[in-house]
Amino acid sequence: MTPPRRPVYYLFMKRDAKADIINAGADLIHRQGFNRTGLKEILDAAGVPKGSFYFYFKSKEDFGLTLIDHFQEVMAENARPLLADRALPPLQRLARFFATRREFFEQGGCQRGCAIGNLAQEMSDLSPAMRHGVSRVLSSLADSLEALLAEAAGCGDLPVDLDPGRTAAFIVDAWEGALLRMKAEKNVEPLRRFEDMIFSRLLR
Amino acid sequence: MTPPRRPVYYLFMKRDAKADIINAGADLIHRQGFNRTGLKEILDAAGVPKGSFYFYFKSKEDFGLTLIDHFQEVMAENARPLLADRALPPLQRLARFFATRREFFEQGGCQRGCAIGNLAQEMSDLSPAMRHGVSRVLSSLADSLEALLAEAAGCGDLPVDLDPGRTAAFIVDAWEGALLRMKAEKNVEPLRRFEDMIFSRLLR
Repeated sequence: MTPPRRPVYYLFMKRDAKADIINAGADLIHRQGFNRTGLKEILDAAGVPKGSFYFYFKSKEDFGLTLIDHFQEVMAENARPLLADRALPPLQRLARFFATRREFFEQGGCQRGCAIGNLAQEMSDLSPAMRHGVSRVLSSLADSLEALLAEAAGCGDLPVDLDPGRTAAFIVDAWEGALLRMKAEKNVEPLRRFEDMIFSRLLR
Repeated sequence: MTPPRRPVYYLFMKRDAKADIINAGADLIHRQGFNRTGLKEILDAAGVPKGSFYFYFKSKEDFGLTLIDHFQEVMAENARPLLADRALPPLQRLARFFATRREFFEQGGCQRGCAIGNLAQEMSDLSPAMRHGVSRVLSSLADSLEALLAEAAGCGDLPVDLDPGRTAAFIVDAWEGALLRMKAEKNVEPLRRFEDMIFSRLLR
């Protein structure tokens, strides 16, 4: 006996439903936090029947891990064209990256902040798996910046007493703090201050 | 007709019950977040009957505002003896303050992070009143640091191109970011990195 064949459109529907749940969850959780957002709210926003969540995800934590990967992809897609643009020297690429992010937040009314920073703050003590996930993303962002700083060091554009790795990690942390303050103040002055201190003082 | 007099012990009980609710709520919310912590959980931990919450607080948000004041008091009590110790020059006082906080977090297993930073991240987009509260506390911390930096500038100990106000605000933001990363990494290397960058580079 051959197994019943699922029609082709069903396979496509499944794939879309999973993406719809991820996109709806990413939007809600970025806006209002992981614990505050219920599965029912996510599935309603995604327009997907309730039962289908556990077809794709083992648990809400498992969904959280998928979201962390999703946010990392979105962040990498935003960063890549700016950080990889060889038409500019490395420190100018880095400065343009942060200026572009500042403009993005300014246009959005200084809402939400960093999706990964939010989850780091909210979930690090509640879910070891999510803590490892957000750590990995923050380290990966720091690695990208470290590559730029090492490139700058190679051109003699980095102060010789700055270690590219530690400096990159500090910049990521200071950026996360500036975004937190921006969210609280609802203006981008903390981001401007960050850019001034990093580019006019620390890297000079 | 004179109003019925409450026995004296009742007045004391009331005051203690309010303090018990605040202390239990501060502990739980610092540990697991504002939205994740229910009123029942707080009242159970405080050993106070359910009805009494609304005797002291108009709403959970109102309680959140009281907690923000509570956290500010605790932070100020921790900071005051270190920042006001005139036996040391101002930048050494500041360095000792951050080193002491690092030791505190290290002893506690890098849990929880900054209570105000957590609420800033979680609640800034959900409660305008709480957003104003956390902004006020962060600004007040920055004001304390600004006073020290201005004192250092008066002794010629601050680089002349650093504005005490903006520098103090940047230091507060970078510290919040370092605490966020510490929580995610579960080690104090982000705090050490912060101290190195601020005291060996930025303020030098």
